[in-house]
Amino acid sequence: MSKLDTGKYLDLFRTELYDNVLPFWLDHSLDSEHGGYFNCLDRDGRVYDTTKHMWLQCRQVWMLSRLYNALEKRDSWLAAARSGVDFIRKYGRSRDGRVYFSLSRKGSPVFIQRKIFAECFYIMALDEYSRAVGNLELKKEALEMFAKVLAWKDNPAALGRPVLSGQPEVSSLAVPMIILWVANQLAEGEKDAPFKELMEKSTAEMLLHPRHDKKIVLENVAPDGSLLEGGLGRLINPGHAIEAGWFLLERARKTGNHELGKAAISMIEWSFEKGWDPEHGGIFYFMDSEGAPPFQLEWFMKLWWPHCEALYALLLAWHATGDQRFANWFEQVADYAMSRFRDPVHGEWFGYLDREGTPTHTLKGGAYKGCFHVPRFLLLCIKLLEKIC
Amino acid sequence: MSKLDTGKYLDLFRTELYDNVLPFWLDHSLDSEHGGYFNCLDRDGRVYDTTKHMWLQCRQVWMLSRLYNALEKRDSWLAAARSGVDFIRKYGRSRDGRVYFSLSRKGSPVFIQRKIFAECFYIMALDEYSRAVGNLELKKEALEMFAKVLAWKDNPAALGRPVLSGQPEVSSLAVPMIILWVANQLAEGEKDAPFKELMEKSTAEMLLHPRHDKKIVLENVAPDGSLLEGGLGRLINPGHAIEAGWFLLERARKTGNHELGKAAISMIEWSFEKGWDPEHGGIFYFMDSEGAPPFQLEWFMKLWWPHCEALYALLLAWHATGDQRFANWFEQVADYAMSRFRDPVHGEWFGYLDREGTPTHTLKGGAYKGCFHVPRFLLLCIKLLEKIC
Repeated sequence: MSKLDTGKYLDLFRTELYDNVLPFWLDHSLDSEHGGYFNCLDRDGRVYDTTKHMWLQCRQVWMLSRLYNALEKRDSWLAAARSGVDFIRKYGRSRDGRVYFSLSRKGSPVFIQRKIFAECFYIMALDEYSRAVGNLELKKEALEMFAKVLAWKDNPAALGRPVLSGQPEVSSLAVPMIILWVANQLAEGEKDAPFKELMEKSTAEMLLHPRHDKKIVLENVAPDGSLLEGGLGRLINPGHAIEAGWFLLERARKTGNHELGKAAISMIEWSFEKGWDPEHGGIFYFMDSEGAPPFQLEWFMKLWWPHCEALYALLLAWHATGDQRFANWFEQVADYAMSRFRDPVHGEWFGYLDREGTPTHTLKGGAYKGCFHVPRFLLLCIKLLEKIC
Repeated sequence: MSKLDTGKYLDLFRTELYDNVLPFWLDHSLDSEHGGYFNCLDRDGRVYDTTKHMWLQCRQVWMLSRLYNALEKRDSWLAAARSGVDFIRKYGRSRDGRVYFSLSRKGSPVFIQRKIFAECFYIMALDEYSRAVGNLELKKEALEMFAKVLAWKDNPAALGRPVLSGQPEVSSLAVPMIILWVANQLAEGEKDAPFKELMEKSTAEMLLHPRHDKKIVLENVAPDGSLLEGGLGRLINPGHAIEAGWFLLERARKTGNHELGKAAISMIEWSFEKGWDPEHGGIFYFMDSEGAPPFQLEWFMKLWWPHCEALYALLLAWHATGDQRFANWFEQVADYAMSRFRDPVHGEWFGYLDREGTPTHTLKGGAYKGCFHVPRFLLLCIKLLEKIC
């Protein structure tokens, strides 16, 4: 094994999780009056908007339950998770069983997306919490929701998206990724190893996205793996591809699939090398594979979550290969993230930096940032480092 | 009248329009094979995506027809407009009379928004082109589409937007603005002065947005003018408010409504003062009225169009008031825009700068930028300067 001071990072990440990250959420996010969580929190924890975004409500339930299940049986974590579960079950679903995107503070529905992601986070939340409290009814509810998601995912009309003749058929990396992640969650610890075929299928779909000729991972390809025209077909989301890489690397290690492991490691390596900004450091949010202008205005920004994903992915790739490059990259990202994203004054991390690495937003929580990516990567790294040390 | 070298700007803007802006679009955007326009053009005019976005198809038809009607009877402008009209009429509408958001190069529908803006730009295009060629059938078609838009605008369900109980009722500045603009277009030169009541109503709705106590213009308020909760209710889009200001100032001058003129000038003044970045120059894209973090990732970016709108608005406000501040601000924005956005090498303007004023995208045309804001403000300024000089 090559050189990495694993003990230093184990200490660092434990301290970060326990002392800098979790206190922020537990001190500021709980809505003791109406249940659930305030997820729009400014730098010092002040609530700047009381909208409750379901992605974040569900992810916080999952995260707190996961910490309880995997790290330490803290009653305060479980109690906070329960408040979220009660809220999302009471208010989060529409009459036809979909999950809203956002609710008012008191739980009235505000917005619903024409996508399956809110539903998937809802399933994750229920399943993880059900393990914490041993409630099989919740598990059953999660499985029922998953059956619906599987029916909806290939049927945009069911989600209210009109099907138009000029729309190319797209395999978006996000869909097989979330399906694999949810199936993996639901299968965890189950005796009859359910969803095996579904996970194989999702894995195969994800493997359509790496392009070996160019050493890149494309966000969107045709269902047969061929290239799509235009900016859609050239889009790269390096952080997302890195996250996909560790999903697949974990699966490869679980199933003993050496070929899959190699492919997953390539996804991490290529996406990190492509995504890292050689001029200012940090991982770009979006890129065009041919260098054409991306449609996304914010393509050049440095977001917290790709760096969280990269830290775990690079550590896992280093552990799997012993290749010193991954250790070096891991340290490079850790230095960048801990100096740029981390807020040593009020806890948690900033979410959004400009290209040069200066925060553009003071928020710690918003419509897409909550108690999730930072504590999740810390937990994953801590568990892996505990194994190594 | 206070001091502004109007002759200098008249020359500058004529040269900019004729030599730097229009050649870019006429040389690069026309699709001679399938009709319509390529609107995704990189810095040098290279097509980086063949998707045809209907906002830009319609706006280019309007712009070229307007130039033909108001500036000079150039056959090449009219021919280019005709190619666009034929394309949008053949492919742009759905069976239920809505207008798509984007089409493939050959005209197959790709995406439809749940908003009325594509329809409004379609009406503008048809109406302006109908004047150029004296085709009353097209005018009739525009009027029929407008009747539908008026029915749809207050009925989100008709546009496919689910109505949810937690959604606040919102008066968004964008809606009365576009309705006023389209009504104004359709009424132009008509003997019976149609849409008078509608224009009064839209004007009144727009006037709910300026907040005299804080000298700001809010993007979203309740239908009774009261404040909305959260980030939605605190959102400021300075460029949009400045554009609204000149819409209303033109209307005030046309109708001889002195009170409206004063209100419009305040909107321009407050929004410019609020929106100008004191540190790096340029007008912010979005702001939160209380300084909370905006939900928009790109809030700090400097976009070309608020600067186009500001140039005409400030010139018009100066002309209306003689107040030297407006002349000074006009020169300040002109200096910023001509040195930062203008591309002296390949023509047209860059669209997107970072906070410091460096282009983040090389594109000249994209999903929301086309042959519209730059030539429109140049034409408006040229016509006003011709009157003054």
